[in-house]
Amino acid sequence: MITDADVEQWLREDVGHHDVTNDVPGDTEGRLVAKEPGTVAGLDAARAVFSYLDCDPTLRVGVGDPIEPGDVLLEVAGPARKLLRGERVAVNIVGHASGIATKTAAAVDAARTVADDTVIAGTRKTTPGLRGVEKRAVAAGGGDTHRLDLSHMVMVKDNHVAEMGLEGAISHFSDRASFATKLDVEVEHVEDAPRAAEFGADIVLLDNMTPDETERAVELVAGTDGETLTEASGSITVDTVPHYAGTGVDIISMGSLTHSAPTLDLSFRTG
Amino acid sequence: MITDADVEQWLREDVGHHDVTNDVPGDTEGRLVAKEPGTVAGLDAARAVFSYLDCDPTLRVGVGDPIEPGDVLLEVAGPARKLLRGERVAVNIVGHASGIATKTAAAVDAARTVADDTVIAGTRKTTPGLRGVEKRAVAAGGGDTHRLDLSHMVMVKDNHVAEMGLEGAISHFSDRASFATKLDVEVEHVEDAPRAAEFGADIVLLDNMTPDETERAVELVAGTDGETLTEASGSITVDTVPHYAGTGVDIISMGSLTHSAPTLDLSFRTG
Amino acid sequence: MITDADVEQWLREDVGHHDVTNDVPGDTEGRLVAKEPGTVAGLDAARAVFSYLDCDPTLRVGVGDPIEPGDVLLEVAGPARKLLRGERVAVNIVGHASGIATKTAAAVDAARTVADDTVIAGTRKTTPGLRGVEKRAVAAGGGDTHRLDLSHMVMVKDNHVAEMGLEGAISHFSDRASFATKLDVEVEHVEDAPRAAEFGADIVLLDNMTPDETERAVELVAGTDGETLTEASGSITVDTVPHYAGTGVDIISMGSLTHSAPTLDLSFRTG
Amino acid sequence: MITDADVEQWLREDVGHHDVTNDVPGDTEGRLVAKEPGTVAGLDAARAVFSYLDCDPTLRVGVGDPIEPGDVLLEVAGPARKLLRGERVAVNIVGHASGIATKTAAAVDAARTVADDTVIAGTRKTTPGLRGVEKRAVAAGGGDTHRLDLSHMVMVKDNHVAEMGLEGAISHFSDRASFATKLDVEVEHVEDAPRAAEFGADIVLLDNMTPDETERAVELVAGTDGETLTEASGSITVDTVPHYAGTGVDIISMGSLTHSAPTLDLSFRTG
Amino acid sequence: MITDADVEQWLREDVGHHDVTNDVPGDTEGRLVAKEPGTVAGLDAARAVFSYLDCDPTLRVGVGDPIEPGDVLLEVAGPARKLLRGERVAVNIVGHASGIATKTAAAVDAARTVADDTVIAGTRKTTPGLRGVEKRAVAAGGGDTHRLDLSHMVMVKDNHVAEMGLEGAISHFSDRASFATKLDVEVEHVEDAPRAAEFGADIVLLDNMTPDETERAVELVAGTDGETLTEASGSITVDTVPHYAGTGVDIISMGSLTHSAPTLDLSFRTG
Amino acid sequence: MITDADVEQWLREDVGHHDVTNDVPGDTEGRLVAKEPGTVAGLDAARAVFSYLDCDPTLRVGVGDPIEPGDVLLEVAGPARKLLRGERVAVNIVGHASGIATKTAAAVDAARTVADDTVIAGTRKTTPGLRGVEKRAVAAGGGDTHRLDLSHMVMVKDNHVAEMGLEGAISHFSDRASFATKLDVEVEHVEDAPRAAEFGADIVLLDNMTPDETERAVELVAGTDGETLTEASGSITVDTVPHYAGTGVDIISMGSLTHSAPTLDLSFRTG
Repeated sequence: MITDADVEQWLREDVGHHDVTNDVPGDTEGRLVAKEPGTVAGLDAARAVFSYLDCDPTLRVGVGDPIEPGDVLLEVAGPARKLLRGERVAVNIVGHASGIATKTAAAVDAARTVADDTVIAGTRKTTPGLRGVEKRAVAAGGGDTHRLDLSHMVMVKDNHVAEMGLEGAISHFSDRASFATKLDVEVEHVEDAPRAAEFGADIVLLDNMTPDETERAVELVAGTDGETLTEASGSITVDTVPHYAGTGVDIISMGSLTHSAPTLDLSFRTG
Repeated sequence: MITDADVEQWLREDVGHHDVTNDVPGDTEGRLVAKEPGTVAGLDAARAVFSYLDCDPTLRVGVGDPIEPGDVLLEVAGPARKLLRGERVAVNIVGHASGIATKTAAAVDAARTVADDTVIAGTRKTTPGLRGVEKRAVAAGGGDTHRLDLSHMVMVKDNHVAEMGLEGAISHFSDRASFATKLDVEVEHVEDAPRAAEFGADIVLLDNMTPDETERAVELVAGTDGETLTEASGSITVDTVPHYAGTGVDIISMGSLTHSAPTLDLSFRTG
Repeated sequence: MITDADVEQWLREDVGHHDVTNDVPGDTEGRLVAKEPGTVAGLDAARAVFSYLDCDPTLRVGVGDPIEPGDVLLEVAGPARKLLRGERVAVNIVGHASGIATKTAAAVDAARTVADDTVIAGTRKTTPGLRGVEKRAVAAGGGDTHRLDLSHMVMVKDNHVAEMGLEGAISHFSDRASFATKLDVEVEHVEDAPRAAEFGADIVLLDNMTPDETERAVELVAGTDGETLTEASGSITVDTVPHYAGTGVDIISMGSLTHSAPTLDLSFRTG
Repeated sequence: MITDADVEQWLREDVGHHDVTNDVPGDTEGRLVAKEPGTVAGLDAARAVFSYLDCDPTLRVGVGDPIEPGDVLLEVAGPARKLLRGERVAVNIVGHASGIATKTAAAVDAARTVADDTVIAGTRKTTPGLRGVEKRAVAAGGGDTHRLDLSHMVMVKDNHVAEMGLEGAISHFSDRASFATKLDVEVEHVEDAPRAAEFGADIVLLDNMTPDETERAVELVAGTDGETLTEASGSITVDTVPHYAGTGVDIISMGSLTHSAPTLDLSFRTG
Repeated sequence: MITDADVEQWLREDVGHHDVTNDVPGDTEGRLVAKEPGTVAGLDAARAVFSYLDCDPTLRVGVGDPIEPGDVLLEVAGPARKLLRGERVAVNIVGHASGIATKTAAAVDAARTVADDTVIAGTRKTTPGLRGVEKRAVAAGGGDTHRLDLSHMVMVKDNHVAEMGLEGAISHFSDRASFATKLDVEVEHVEDAPRAAEFGADIVLLDNMTPDETERAVELVAGTDGETLTEASGSITVDTVPHYAGTGVDIISMGSLTHSAPTLDLSFRTG
Repeated sequence: MITDADVEQWLREDVGHHDVTNDVPGDTEGRLVAKEPGTVAGLDAARAVFSYLDCDPTLRVGVGDPIEPGDVLLEVAGPARKLLRGERVAVNIVGHASGIATKTAAAVDAARTVADDTVIAGTRKTTPGLRGVEKRAVAAGGGDTHRLDLSHMVMVKDNHVAEMGLEGAISHFSDRASFATKLDVEVEHVEDAPRAAEFGADIVLLDNMTPDETERAVELVAGTDGETLTEASGSITVDTVPHYAGTGVDIISMGSLTHSAPTLDLSFRTG
């Protein structure tokens, strides 16, 4: 959900106290147009920006749609002054979100070359202030939003294990976590993976393992009798996704989807 | 300036209503550590995050410093619960800002291979909500912050020229802009560059020109008797920076410094 | 997490523009004291209020502790003017949260009379603006926080089933929900409970059933081979908790824990 | 006045970053329906919630109206996604406010059994963040809003009297308070009541007195020649209201109206 | 009460995204110094500004104190960068508030030339965003804060009287207003003044009357047997205050105290 | 740009928790009417106030227009309750802004008596919270907005010069400031003015000089070969403007335009 407070923050930082450049009379029309191919996201934010400015935007594509150069994403009409003030913010936020969706779609496509249902997931490595926008952009690109915030899922980390042991840590958090909350347990050694599954992990996160180690860990977890999922994480790139997708791991999570996606090139054309 | 309201927004979206994972007793120490070489920025934001949480961070490097893998950027001590809650936000913001500083420094270095004082500048293509953080990151990387917001400098665009003519548009905005505000005039044709200079532009922006066109435009502007600066802009990358820097243009502005810089890889180590 | 913005909102609405009553010189000490027995919660909010006012509070009991009349919960020293301005807000928020914790503890005790591990859980029926405070108060009373917000867990409701059928609805949301997110499926007929389990529900919510119906549904779900949990919900009171706890249901969720708990009687004594 | 910022706070805490459950296409209609009898309040807040979501709610009853099970309070049409996201917040706030109005109306009715015009009043013991909503709910139930905030009326308390004496304290605050502001003086002993009246109190608050003590204090105040009002306060419940109303006291103030009123049971029905 | 949110708003609008001017190293000391005589107010705001910036200000005079050129109002030490950023905001707010206090003190002095206890009061004609600062500045100058906001006191206006008649309007609002709230009734004709008093006004506001008319109205109100106060209002200036103070009216209220007071000249000296 | 958050702040501080006075039924019409001649500003804020209240205001004059007593500035229709709640805020903000515009216009007129194009400019001495409103009011009155915030233009001050020397300070800031940012250099001695121009100042601010000193400094700067502007500042009043305008100085900046302008007298008439 994009709030008015979000939009105010974005416009206020861009407009400043006295914008002379865009203080022009008359009405006009504007179109948000793709300049390169990709996957679209962030249109709810662009709509919120123009709605806040009392213009009336119409979406021409849906979230998650593939777009080609020249495709119109959004049309809006209204006072030129308002359109010109919303333009840069709208381009920036849609370009940013669509860049994430596009990178996510590329990772999903890379996984599909070797496996039909490996999940590509984001992380909490998002740009401060834009958690919701970026998580929804990952979903738009066909990815999984993963843990939305610290309260959404419990992750048992190496420092917990160092202090309480693997079984102790899982037991500690199983007692404290709500029944509504899953438990994702990070392991660094292949042989800890099945142990975590047996102690009650809902997901076992295989941290910084090679594809070979990952494959062995996945097999060992499959040999336990629960329904534990496996997740690979740690510096995986779009290029190395197929190596992990081929291991049978259920989920591949990638911080780069959100923290290192280049913008999707867009322009706002008026008149 | 990072406000408490910024920090609250960042922490609130990451923590959620009931964080079980990090609800641990005791005090600890943490260090923000570089995992790859780069240029550091955003430390004021990390300091603000930990200060908001009543911890007491110490900066170990200065903004704009080059860093190597293993370098400690910031140290902080306090309740483990608080450090763990601030950790992700601090890494995300410093990684994001340092990624921008690092890319800016690379562009500056690329320019220096052919010219001693070409300015590398950012644009208004920043991530919504982070204008100040990103502009200061550009400065940290040795770049120029360019127009901070719409009220900072007047830019005369093609749509203004279409409506009022080049001379008319420059005159229109010269009348309306404060004496404190410069006038940057965008031209798309080489021959318009010296005309803009003569009509009173403080800066002439050479939009989407080739290096050759840019070079000619720079020469023509130099032939007028004002002190007009020249600026090249439009899809210039770190790789193509030297081609433009070699033209004698004063400023090269690049949206990709802020909208497409990958994060700088950092980790937060506790204990 | 209590933010400064929360505290500002609370103080601003209570203080107004010109408080003459509490504009008194000198320093004083204050103690938050229980006037009736109960379970304490909300102390982080009281601490945040006095810290915001630059006073230095010390907690004398822990969250979730049982308290008796006369017990001191918090001590604070500072300018009389500030303590008197924080007093009413602190009493209101701690009384409110502790009232919820106390009612939750009573429900847990009622369940324990017949079952060792039935979970007592809250709902999203919280007071607007206080979601986090109230969820943590439920936890303080020994309850389970249940779904923290709409994004935390997917709940499949009767209107979804009406439109897509039970299997269709579960399949629809399994496809869309993150692997990190559980699926809680509401059923109104006993015979739908095992079907929901088989179609993939993580939890089956038995809505508005009698204890007898609940018992039968629990048995049917146990007969399926997954690890599906069962949850009873719908106008269950502390008095009727034992009837449900006796059915073997895993979770009893009660809106009244948060929307209808009387305050815990506290006073703030100065001097 | 419900602000957009209030509504944003309420929706943001309930929706989270990525709500899958309610992400459904199409339009629908919704009705807020009473499930038990009571007195309605808080409809301005529900209207604000749906208006913020760009839906168009219509109120079917007025604030302060008595309602019966099945009565429709509000109707609204719009995108299903938006109605479902506003639903829980709307039910929570109207149920909360109407619970307060209903309890207030019960206290007023109890007073009316023995006295025609005893005023039933709320206090500052309100839920943090909801001062205005709860004060207006007390008014909706036929009660008096009493002191809205610390700046609205000066209350002279026992700690003031301990320091300056009764006459000294009243004189101190008469000098400092605006002519626009009344003076409510708290006394704990019957014999202090007429003294407070003579020294200039606008209202004498009879704190924690029995009905008999209250009656004597009321008579003594009546014997002075001002127009001083009398107020009874201190753990008075709906059950004991008639005992105090019978004493001739002008005002009975009750913290429980706001801090311990159970919600009024409502549901939101769509389709 | 000055909140952190107030200070953030003030600093953010003054600092912008990248302040080069004040980005200087080292620590320094600063003093807020009077350049002309007057009455001081607004120091709580200046203290809040520097405290927000983590500097440690010390007040050297009290609110309401008379000051002479050269007097130091506040001292503060800290990083030069922070002091220089807080300086302009601190001078602006203290100059503004002290200008109001100074003008109020002048009006009080003018009244004292002819009457010992006529009250000089402000109005709701304050600068948007600064209600509390300006009301407290009026108090600092020896004035009365009058109605703090619409909820503080009921004012019966000419449009109410036009619709319901004088008696009807007073009766209407007496029924609806809390016992904690006074009733100020505006009359435009001398002969309505005693009628308003008899119908139950706490204060009769004599609107736009000449001193002679005011004197007659005051006498007529004194002839009724209540304790009704009289208030003169309507374009009264410091120069004409004595004419009204001589009529025996209890209160003179003046919008110009807040909406037209020139700043008090101050400077901030560092080093 | 006036944000909804601005309007909420203004209305919240004026309305309080329970406004009885204006809680009236029915619709009405209102007009904002001038009671004295002047120059209008701030209408965007008034429009934002009534729009926020869902009324539909129409502007009858343009920003910067001269107005006479009786002129209607704005008309608005809607629920009486809402119009009456917006009225005071609208009058306060438009009166404040128009007072500034009117004073600015008077200063411009004073300058025009002796010089055709001397610029009259505001300063950063604005009322905290109203920077944008007041800067735009200066522009409405025919003035120049000058430095909008610290990030807009670099000003080299006496303390910089004391530390680094005049040439050193100008060089220091030329290196650090963006090409988009001008450099305004403050000098206190006539002979420093041409030196500042030669070292690279865009503007030389002649601080606290007499008209004679100003004239000499202007001549000396004109004798250098750059295009440096000259600015006079320091306690210049509308009365002394002509003495400075006659010196040939380019810009006269005056803090009193914003910090000491009396309100323009307006009324809001309903029905």
